[in-house]
Amino acid sequence: MGPSPIAYPEGMARWEPDARDRLLRAALDLFAEQGYDDTTVIQIAQRAGLTKSTFFRHFRDKREVLFGGQDTLNGLLAEGIANAPDGATPLDAVAAALAAAAAIFIPARRDYAPALLAAIAANSELREREALKYTGFAEAMTEALRRRGVPDRPASVAAWLGVLAFGDAYSRWADPANPHEFGELARQALQELRTTVAELR
Amino acid sequence: MGPSPIAYPEGMARWEPDARDRLLRAALDLFAEQGYDDTTVIQIAQRAGLTKSTFFRHFRDKREVLFGGQDTLNGLLAEGIANAPDGATPLDAVAAALAAAAAIFIPARRDYAPALLAAIAANSELREREALKYTGFAEAMTEALRRRGVPDRPASVAAWLGVLAFGDAYSRWADPANPHEFGELARQALQELRTTVAELR
Repeated sequence: MGPSPIAYPEGMARWEPDARDRLLRAALDLFAEQGYDDTTVIQIAQRAGLTKSTFFRHFRDKREVLFGGQDTLNGLLAEGIANAPDGATPLDAVAAALAAAAAIFIPARRDYAPALLAAIAANSELREREALKYTGFAEAMTEALRRRGVPDRPASVAAWLGVLAFGDAYSRWADPANPHEFGELARQALQELRTTVAELR
Repeated sequence: MGPSPIAYPEGMARWEPDARDRLLRAALDLFAEQGYDDTTVIQIAQRAGLTKSTFFRHFRDKREVLFGGQDTLNGLLAEGIANAPDGATPLDAVAAALAAAAAIFIPARRDYAPALLAAIAANSELREREALKYTGFAEAMTEALRRRGVPDRPASVAAWLGVLAFGDAYSRWADPANPHEFGELARQALQELRTTVAELR
């Protein structure tokens, strides 16, 4: 789908193919330059060369610029588990969830991953939001495992191991020196966690 | 230590032996009656029969009324791990952490546990703060395990199993129909998680 030739009535969304990405990059630049707390939505929109109303078509507030893909990720994790083969163990299903989630970790996203991690690490409000994001991943996977008939406790433990693998893979992937894809890093991380768990006393 | 007979100069804290508890109960009542968002610090202080400045001697803001004991808990969990016997496995050390944390789960705290859980469940901002609290428990235990020489990955997995056991025990303990003490519930929950983990595939 390319730019639309239609002249929209005033107030209707214009087609801005890369607005979301421009807003994210502008926000990350400003957060790095002047801090999250001192950055306003208007400044982000201006830096991106867009209007405040374009900002609010894409994001509820400045915090959500950093947490935009969460519903998509929850959906991919749950789908991965739902689509795992019939005989898959809970941890096999979690591996399938991580493999499905890998679809969104494209190179364009990797470019801004270090700035994203730095912005979150620098602010306690954002670290809280990040903690909730991970809790959301765990809930999405736990619920998807339950729907496969996995009892509550193993579902919850397998889901949290998936979250630990996810966090581990994401921070490795965000390292520009790391040449591996997210899917491969997540697979490795979960495999290492399975070994850890098997040896845990 | 009883009420002080000393006449404090103006502006200095008077001895209000149960101020903290009165503020917490007042806050929980108001959150239940009119919702967290619509409750102000002034209303909480008034309901408790105290002043706004007394409120701020005890809590940074209304949200922290619900999350006040976190530093104490982090400290107890870390101490429990530090003081576990030399030969303790990582999960034995986590069991010692939960046993140490049990010290603060006294009957007075149990009385308001259901209202506390209800207030948190009803508000997304509070659920975020709760998620951060649990992340804080995991970090405190992971760090304490590392100081015992446990490598990163088993330290992290054991700590998160401790967090799952903690959350499980707390929600059972908050049920007025449950006759067991927190320490016993946490011990059971961790034991069940160890079995789950041993069987997880």
